[in-house]
Amino acid sequence: MKTFTLEEITNITGGMLTKAQDVSISMIAPPLLADENTLALALGEDEIANLSKSRAKAALVPLGVNIDGLTTIEVERPRLAMMKLINMFYAAPEVNTGIHPSAIVHETAKLGENVKIGPNVVIARNTILGDNTQIVANSYIGSGVKTGKNCFFHPGVNIGDRVILGDNVILQHGVSLGADGFSFVTEKPDNIEQAKQDGTIKESNAEQKIYKIPSIGSVVIGNNVEIGANSTIDRGTIENTIIGDNTKIDDLVMIGHNCKVGKGCLIVSQAGIAGSCVIGDRVVIAGQAGLADHIEIGADSIIAAKTGVSKSFPEKSIIMGIPAIPRKEFIRNIKVMKEAGELVTKFKKYEPLLKEFEENNDLNS
Amino acid sequence: MKTFTLEEITNITGGMLTKAQDVSISMIAPPLLADENTLALALGEDEIANLSKSRAKAALVPLGVNIDGLTTIEVERPRLAMMKLINMFYAAPEVNTGIHPSAIVHETAKLGENVKIGPNVVIARNTILGDNTQIVANSYIGSGVKTGKNCFFHPGVNIGDRVILGDNVILQHGVSLGADGFSFVTEKPDNIEQAKQDGTIKESNAEQKIYKIPSIGSVVIGNNVEIGANSTIDRGTIENTIIGDNTKIDDLVMIGHNCKVGKGCLIVSQAGIAGSCVIGDRVVIAGQAGLADHIEIGADSIIAAKTGVSKSFPEKSIIMGIPAIPRKEFIRNIKVMKEAGELVTKFKKYEPLLKEFEENNDLNS
Amino acid sequence: MKTFTLEEITNITGGMLTKAQDVSISMIAPPLLADENTLALALGEDEIANLSKSRAKAALVPLGVNIDGLTTIEVERPRLAMMKLINMFYAAPEVNTGIHPSAIVHETAKLGENVKIGPNVVIARNTILGDNTQIVANSYIGSGVKTGKNCFFHPGVNIGDRVILGDNVILQHGVSLGADGFSFVTEKPDNIEQAKQDGTIKESNAEQKIYKIPSIGSVVIGNNVEIGANSTIDRGTIENTIIGDNTKIDDLVMIGHNCKVGKGCLIVSQAGIAGSCVIGDRVVIAGQAGLADHIEIGADSIIAAKTGVSKSFPEKSIIMGIPAIPRKEFIRNIKVMKEAGELVTKFKKYEPLLKEFEENNDLNS
Repeated sequence: MKTFTLEEITNITGGMLTKAQDVSISMIAPPLLADENTLALALGEDEIANLSKSRAKAALVPLGVNIDGLTTIEVERPRLAMMKLINMFYAAPEVNTGIHPSAIVHETAKLGENVKIGPNVVIARNTILGDNTQIVANSYIGSGVKTGKNCFFHPGVNIGDRVILGDNVILQHGVSLGADGFSFVTEKPDNIEQAKQDGTIKESNAEQKIYKIPSIGSVVIGNNVEIGANSTIDRGTIENTIIGDNTKIDDLVMIGHNCKVGKGCLIVSQAGIAGSCVIGDRVVIAGQAGLADHIEIGADSIIAAKTGVSKSFPEKSIIMGIPAIPRKEFIRNIKVMKEAGELVTKFKKYEPLLKEFEENNDLNS
Repeated sequence: MKTFTLEEITNITGGMLTKAQDVSISMIAPPLLADENTLALALGEDEIANLSKSRAKAALVPLGVNIDGLTTIEVERPRLAMMKLINMFYAAPEVNTGIHPSAIVHETAKLGENVKIGPNVVIARNTILGDNTQIVANSYIGSGVKTGKNCFFHPGVNIGDRVILGDNVILQHGVSLGADGFSFVTEKPDNIEQAKQDGTIKESNAEQKIYKIPSIGSVVIGNNVEIGANSTIDRGTIENTIIGDNTKIDDLVMIGHNCKVGKGCLIVSQAGIAGSCVIGDRVVIAGQAGLADHIEIGADSIIAAKTGVSKSFPEKSIIMGIPAIPRKEFIRNIKVMKEAGELVTKFKKYEPLLKEFEENNDLNS
Repeated sequence: MKTFTLEEITNITGGMLTKAQDVSISMIAPPLLADENTLALALGEDEIANLSKSRAKAALVPLGVNIDGLTTIEVERPRLAMMKLINMFYAAPEVNTGIHPSAIVHETAKLGENVKIGPNVVIARNTILGDNTQIVANSYIGSGVKTGKNCFFHPGVNIGDRVILGDNVILQHGVSLGADGFSFVTEKPDNIEQAKQDGTIKESNAEQKIYKIPSIGSVVIGNNVEIGANSTIDRGTIENTIIGDNTKIDDLVMIGHNCKVGKGCLIVSQAGIAGSCVIGDRVVIAGQAGLADHIEIGADSIIAAKTGVSKSFPEKSIIMGIPAIPRKEFIRNIKVMKEAGELVTKFKKYEPLLKEFEENNDLNS
């Protein structure tokens, strides 16, 4: 078991130790779960209040928080300090050394140094895995795939042919990269094409053959990208679907064919991006938000949870609603709707009067 | 093939047989699909109406339903009776006896009595499987995992290290338990932190390194929990993500890191719960509803389908809308909006009059 | 590498070649990515504008588009032509010949001619695979499953017992067919049943045992159906869940137990259909739309993205909103709400006048 002194923890977190104390820290926990050898983490108000009930002898607190009789390490940015602390105690899932006997690695595949391939992993023809890449178990890596260095694939990952991944890519359970795009065509206009033209659906529209448009593009994932459990990123039709460096994607997210997602984006769980969208750098797409196809979102924008985006927005937009509108407009609309509700009541008071005037007025005219 | 007499079925369902009849029942079906040896299930109005067209000689019906010339078993709670009937004919998916030769079970794993492990299942270091637990195929069970008795894992399940499961847990295809939480931090405030402060995004916000906050917590699943296909429950950051006893989770549901979900909850397909939420006992979260992070929902609440929950609600709340409001308020809002619409029409009538008065009034003043 | 002359491409696409030119086409690409041996695809306005900057010697364009000095193939329906072109260059994922040594095929399974089964695929008892069916890798096919001819299953697919698939069915990564339906019952009415009756939740509603209603129905998938990555289609309770011929389903879609989906439907990513719905032929369900249970949607209807459908709609409906209403009504509502907002402003102007009149009127009366 790893243990640390308070001085070591103070150094690593860049904090300020309020009182020296000889305690060996072997874990971190919220105040109520902490024991004498645990550093209590009190990042928010509730947890700070719980410190008085904690058995911990020391706590990590935001700058300026003083707790009588408790040794504290004060830090300017508690979440950043927490990240550093957790890394001290974190152990990655174990992967066997080398190639597990049950793994099926095509003879043409090229493996970098120190690559670890777990049980039941299939590596297809001509695939290249960068140094230190680890694939835990039960995953399929298609032919012509290329990964950078230090990638880590949790179990159950499926990667289609010719997908390219950068360095340090983390894939959680069940991620799908490079499934075919959802792309079809009919000989004659189908219901959607008709409805787009004139808002109606024609009587004559009988069933016709639906042809699959195969996807000959692929998926290109940048460096330091993480993709959450059971998320799906489809391959491009002709071009590639692209995810920029440092972008982080949560669980059950769908990114459609041909999308170009910028760098440093955060895409939260169950969000969906339809085909051919262009998302700028550092865009945040909150949970369950959805974007229609062919939309462009400028850099540094924030799309609120559950937003339905039906048109493009420029950089630094903060948008919400279905269909999406700028946040300011959304708030104004809520205010107006509230006033309209009040107006209904007011108007009821004046209506008899108006009615009377109207009748009199008719007589006069 | 199992067959039953009407008397046996009457006993099992606790119903009332209206007429003795010597018929051997080998299956159950809706009236239109039933043949002479099938018990017709007529639980709702449509199906009751269809009984006249059925070939079945006997039917299960709600209490008080009489069909001329048809033998019926009347039951007080038809869905409960249906459950009992289906269990008479149900056969669980077959799993090989013992450990399939292709399974890879670490030498340190401890298997209870009568554990069945199917093809290509990987069981990692120090994992403990309770008595009668069955794992069908192609699944990964990480190290230090512990399951209770009688668990049943359908194929393609991925369970991360140290996840704890109670007794009688059912996991459907492709479930992910214990993927890493979606948790990151930057050196300086990012776009979201800025926007939360003042509703805007600063000019100066260039790309900065995004650090992953690893998850050292795990997932704890109670007894009798069922989790639907391809759903994902992420591990906690420091504490565990917890799912209470008897809670049932549908397909493609996402439950974020640190969440505490109560007992006896129903969470319907494609619902999502962001990190650190606390959900009381017996809460129903309907399909595609979403909860922002750090929200508390009191026991016995119902969250309607597609609701977007942005704040906490007390027990016995029934909420809907985006953002979520109590059902009564939601219905009142709809009424007010309707009235506001009518007011627009009314006001048009009176507007010329008001204009005239205003002009006259100006003259007078 | 396959190459084609412009004449060959003109023939295959059924287009009109504007100028003969001796060029060997080895790929297709958007104008800016095309080189001299690439046919530039300029289907939309942006791409047509980019043709002037392209290195391509020839382009596919919509009928009537003339680009000075560029050889073009004009086509009436560019997407249809694109589909034909892509098929010229498409290569399906490679599957080993015959049965891979690591595949586990039950001795009772029956394989048609030219069936290919990849690594770590498990085929359970009594399963029948039609001619030319290919299963890439790491998939589970339950007992009593039956597929038609020419099916193609990408890696990581999980198919439960007794699921029936037609010819030419394509399953993308991680598809779940035949997981159990989400169906439970309690001895006494639960919170939802109570709330449906009187809109409230009773004080007395303590926790009670929740019984699973097992699913003894299965899933039946028609011919030419494609199902996207990590989508889930649950088995029926007693009857089968049915997906009609030619229906195409995107990624992360959920289709609940007992649903009957018609022919030629398009169901876009993250849409969800709760149990026992009946969807007519050629219905389009756009992304993230959701349907409550027991709803019927008539043929040729379109359900817009993010719609929440809470009641049935007849054929040729175009619906949107939460809860869903016809498109025309939705647009009218938006107009009315806008007018109500304007009315608030107008009314403020007249309110002092009305107040004055009211006071005077009171005096008079």
